[in-house]
Amino acid sequence: MTADLIAVDWGTSRFRAYLLGGDKMLAQVATDDGVAGLEAADFAAVLARHCGVWRTAAPRIPVLMAGMIGSRNGWREVPYVTAPCNAASIAAGIATIAEGVRIVPGVIQRGVNGAVDVMRGEETLALGAGVGDGVVCMPGTHAKWVAMRDGAIQGFATFVTGELYGLVRSHAFVARLAEDDEDPRGFATGLAAAEAPSGLLHGLFGMRARVLGGTLSGRAARPYLSGLLVGAEVRAALELHPGTTQVRLVADAPLIEPYRQALEHRGCAVSSVSTEATLIAGLRRLTT
Amino acid sequence: MTADLIAVDWGTSRFRAYLLGGDKMLAQVATDDGVAGLEAADFAAVLARHCGVWRTAAPRIPVLMAGMIGSRNGWREVPYVTAPCNAASIAAGIATIAEGVRIVPGVIQRGVNGAVDVMRGEETLALGAGVGDGVVCMPGTHAKWVAMRDGAIQGFATFVTGELYGLVRSHAFVARLAEDDEDPRGFATGLAAAEAPSGLLHGLFGMRARVLGGTLSGRAARPYLSGLLVGAEVRAALELHPGTTQVRLVADAPLIEPYRQALEHRGCAVSSVSTEATLIAGLRRLTT
Repeated sequence: MTADLIAVDWGTSRFRAYLLGGDKMLAQVATDDGVAGLEAADFAAVLARHCGVWRTAAPRIPVLMAGMIGSRNGWREVPYVTAPCNAASIAAGIATIAEGVRIVPGVIQRGVNGAVDVMRGEETLALGAGVGDGVVCMPGTHAKWVAMRDGAIQGFATFVTGELYGLVRSHAFVARLAEDDEDPRGFATGLAAAEAPSGLLHGLFGMRARVLGGTLSGRAARPYLSGLLVGAEVRAALELHPGTTQVRLVADAPLIEPYRQALEHRGCAVSSVSTEATLIAGLRRLTT
Repeated sequence: MTADLIAVDWGTSRFRAYLLGGDKMLAQVATDDGVAGLEAADFAAVLARHCGVWRTAAPRIPVLMAGMIGSRNGWREVPYVTAPCNAASIAAGIATIAEGVRIVPGVIQRGVNGAVDVMRGEETLALGAGVGDGVVCMPGTHAKWVAMRDGAIQGFATFVTGELYGLVRSHAFVARLAEDDEDPRGFATGLAAAEAPSGLLHGLFGMRARVLGGTLSGRAARPYLSGLLVGAEVRAALELHPGTTQVRLVADAPLIEPYRQALEHRGCAVSSVSTEATLIAGLRRLTT
């Protein structure tokens, strides 16, 4: 099979490239050359270093990139496309930044009273998730939930679940209580706590108070934190989409199982697809 | 007026002592000798350093202390009294740790499914807040809301509002966006955002997205964060006490105004009292 596309997922912390030929993946590379660690002058060199051999072998092969590479701190800032939007309107916003090298735009959503949400990279995953009408969940540092209608992006919302987990886990009151050799049963306890009307700010203190009160072990503290935060995210996201009974999860291990558990806890059926396959499918939709 | 009590508020980061004679405050001292910075062997010396002159002048004067001084990391761990509890049951739990030196116990609350909450120091403030039946709000690192009935503590809830504000403000996505010379109008924007059904994890990302989308200035970012967190706390706390139309706020500047604004935004009338006067009134209730 002749190579016909280099698909690139270039995010804050990782660079991933795939040499594609029709339905086949012919080669791939993944490195830590994320946008956050690079200067403006580095991007072309990083791409050449990782994909130069592929491009020499197939000089006219297009390179299509998604992710934070199109942000203010990336190779070039590509203007957002406004939601609602579909594959055609996103494709129309693709920017050519060098010969044969293009970047997919992110998507911006403007709500009432100045509310704004943005994504870069997840618009491509949403298009590749194979959902015509329904809800796509993409866990991570900044988890995204996208509502799809007729195969187009109707709206979306971001939750800082992963970032807050890292912050709280590493600092202050939790760090002092949590023990290693984690007891995974804490996750279900945290999920249940996320149902309380007293909210997340109370649930976070509850972790500390339960350890002091002897109803949660130090080993279960971090899993409790994870369950509380994922539970709060899933609960709030489903508030935005009442009546949802199934969710497409775009995730890899170790995030699949916690999200599956949290979604099933709220009565949703879950079908899961990998980020790699979803990204490739999304970029393919944008090139046809 | 003869001195008849040394009232001490000894918390995590601060030591405050008041020499009292009837209704009069005869002298006071406030230092940074909080529990967090001290070892077990230090407590007696710190008390002697700050209050030794008072005790020499009035050798039999009792010292009554409230706060984290009675915690595991304090002078001695004083067992919690269980809520619901009143002045008499809390007074019965007071521990004598040296001649004439006593510590007020904290309060623990046990709920369903292993839920626990704890406080040390705020039980004394709640007793001193002058509320027979109603809700007392005590903002801070770990904000406490106490429901009073017939002058007794019926139940309470803790919210990690202050701690999370400090964490998020100092780290990660907010720190990169926020600018000094703060624009206080961001607070009202954050308060309004706290009303959204999408919850706190979404509202936190909204701060970043609004700055990127041009609807919030970098100078308004930290006030937005403050409004979002205080708003989320007040909203959740009032969920626990439906029908509340007035709240007693035990606070000092600069926390009075943000909480007043958030409470009034939710339709609550606010009456505010200082922590100093409230602590003294609470300790007085425990000594009669």
